[in-house]
This record gives sequence, structure tokens and C-alpha cells, in this order.
Amino acid sequence: MPIQYPAGTVLSTKTSQNNIIHGKRGMIFEEQINQSNLYYLQKKIAVIHKKPTPVQVVKVDYPKRSAAKITEAYFRHASTTDYNGVYQGFYIDFEAKETKNKTSFPLTNFHEHQVQHMEQCLEQQGITFVLFKFSFHNRVFLLKAQHFIQFWREKHKDGKRQSIPLSYIEKYGYEIHIGMYPIIPYLDIVKHLIDTNNKF
Amino acid sequence: MPIQYPAGTVLSTKTSQNNIIHGKRGMIFEEQINQSNLYYLQKKIAVIHKKPTPVQVVKVDYPKRSAAKITEAYFRHASTTDYNGVYQGFYIDFEAKETKNKTSFPLTNFHEHQVQHMEQCLEQQGITFVLFKFSFHNRVFLLKAQHFIQFWREKHKDGKRQSIPLSYIEKYGYEIHIGMYPIIPYLDIVKHLIDTNNKF
Repeated sequence: MPIQYPAGTVLSTKTSQNNIIHGKRGMIFEEQINQSNLYYLQKKIAVIHKKPTPVQVVKVDYPKRSAAKITEAYFRHASTTDYNGVYQGFYIDFEAKETKNKTSFPLTNFHEHQVQHMEQCLEQQGITFVLFKFSFHNRVFLLKAQHFIQFWREKHKDGKRQSIPLSYIEKYGYEIHIGMYPIIPYLDIVKHLIDTNNKF
Repeated sequence: MPIQYPAGTVLSTKTSQNNIIHGKRGMIFEEQINQSNLYYLQKKIAVIHKKPTPVQVVKVDYPKRSAAKITEAYFRHASTTDYNGVYQGFYIDFEAKETKNKTSFPLTNFHEHQVQHMEQCLEQQGITFVLFKFSFHNRVFLLKAQHFIQFWREKHKDGKRQSIPLSYIEKYGYEIHIGMYPIIPYLDIVKHLIDTNNKF
């Protein structure tokens, strides 16, 4: 809920609201998802966390009287999606990505093993999807894994398409209306899909 | 399945079996769980992964023409349990720990926020538990989160007990018989508990 000011309070609302909006627009998508997950956690709606970035540790110093210090390590590709957790007994699993492109979503940041992981989750009846943010339009979509995988397998892997058209995501996905609490209320869509017996 | 040798094959079975057994005994528990999860994954029984160890990255070098190199980073405490995933639509969440102690399991390697995470998962109807290995006895137990949390809240937090007696784990837990495929067949217990409508 927005803060309620007493009647007569003079505020440069326009400026501060603009700041808020710009702040949110500027906030990276990952941070928006993390804040939404924190909201869901605190409200006891769901327990969903981002997995730590996998790091290959090569060298560690153990200085006396202080914490172990990693002095050589490398980032690794994640072998699964970034987010998972539980919502009312349902297993939730998703990847979240953002682009500045206007009309399509580049697939370069997805990896074959992540797609395989989504397929494995679907086989176990996990609720599996991708969240796409088009930051230019400030629009966010939930695309069920089955539709993402279909595009990946049929259009992408043969080398024809290196990106998913926005029109495909508009057609098969569900738009999430960016809010305040939570910023990205993606579980509204998940709840709707569960309630209407949708397959993921 | 064990390899089937043709009749008449002479093998020093005792020695090689002993090696296998010693090899397994020596294998750290985490590796046994990871191998079991790989078995479950390949057999399409469940999709359960260990989360990466969280690392706080402080400094990164970006050398030309080679991968980014982390030159300063620190290990962080995990804010959740180590393992989670999905089994036939059920959300699975657990921690796995090993001790050389003979009669009790030290609680020093558990953290309050991990216990809180277990409570949160239970509220969302997640299947939540701890796997304990007593390496001296080569015995492994599954203890449902409710019994672990009960001990933690009632016996540990007031400072009375710094470890869970093996007798408590024997009384409230379920022994897992160490096998070959998978080594730690903990989903047998989970399946049994689901089938008998047990609460976690």
C-alpha cells in the first residue's frame, strides 16, 4: 500500500513518483524477482529462492585468525534454472531473463542443459516456466516451459531463429502486471494456471 | 544390478568386494547423495540437486582472451538447506550431514536460518527432512523436519544439548539401508511416508 499522508501535506509527488518509477525501471530484473520472492516469503505465500551462482574454487588461503579467502576461482555455467522452491505443496522452477531488445528475446543466454532441466522438471510434474522482461517496454511475461521448449526444439536448434519474437511470447505467454507488493506478482499467474488445471 | 560373470569365471571376489565396500565407506556422504541424485535423475525418478556453495565475490579480473578470474572471494553460510528438487510433483527439501561420533550427532553445523527455512518449507507443505550419517557405524537415517525442529527448539536452543542422541534419531527417524543403485535410497522412505499419509 502507498503511504497515506495527512490531508494538506505538500509533497513534490510528481518528482518523487518519477524517481520511484525510474528507480524500478532501472532496477535489474533479478533484483525485482528477489524482492518479490522476499515478499512471498514474508507473507508466507511461497518459499522460492535464487540459487547461488556456481563458482569453481581453485585456490584458498587460510590466514590465521580470519576467514578463509578464495584467491582463484571461476564462474561456471548453471546446470539448472536459477530459481526454485515451493508454493502450497507445488514445486516451482523457473528462469528469469531481461532484454533491451524491442521485438524479440535473444536465446543466447539460455543453455541446452537448462532446457533439459526444464524437461526433467516437467516430467516430475513441476510447475516450470520462464519469466521474460522486455525492459524497453517495461513488460514482463510468464511463458510456460512447454511453449519455451517447443520453440527451442523446433525453431532455435535447427539454427533458424536465434531469438523468440515478442509476438510468440504475447501469443503463448501471460503478461504479468508490474506492481508494488510484490513488484513482479508472477504467482498470480501460477495460481490462475493451477486453478484452471493448466498443464506446464 | 551386479555384473553377471559367465559360469566358471574365477574372481578374487572377496578382495574386490572389500575394496568396493571400503571405497564406499570412505566416500564422503555428500558424494554419496550426489550419486544417488544422479541415479534418480537418470532413471527419471526425481530431479534433485545440491545447491552451489554461496560465495561472496569481491574482486574479479577480466583478462583479455580468457575467462573472468575471481581473485578475492569468501565462503558464505547457506541461507537454506543444501538439497532441493521435485519428486512426482512433490517438493523435496533436505540437509545432509555426517559425523564420526558414535552416540550423538553434533548440531554445530546447523544454523538457525536453516531451521527457519525448514519451518517455512513445512508451512508450504514441502517434504522436508534431514539425512544423518554416522560414519563409524555406516548407518544413515532420515529424520523428518518436524522431529528435527522439535529437538532444535526444545532441547538445543536453551543450551541444554549440543547434539542429538543417536537414540532420538533411532526412535523418531527411519533407517536407510545403504545400497548400490542408488547408494542412499532415501526416496524409498519418502515414498513410504507419502503412501502412508505421513506428515513431514
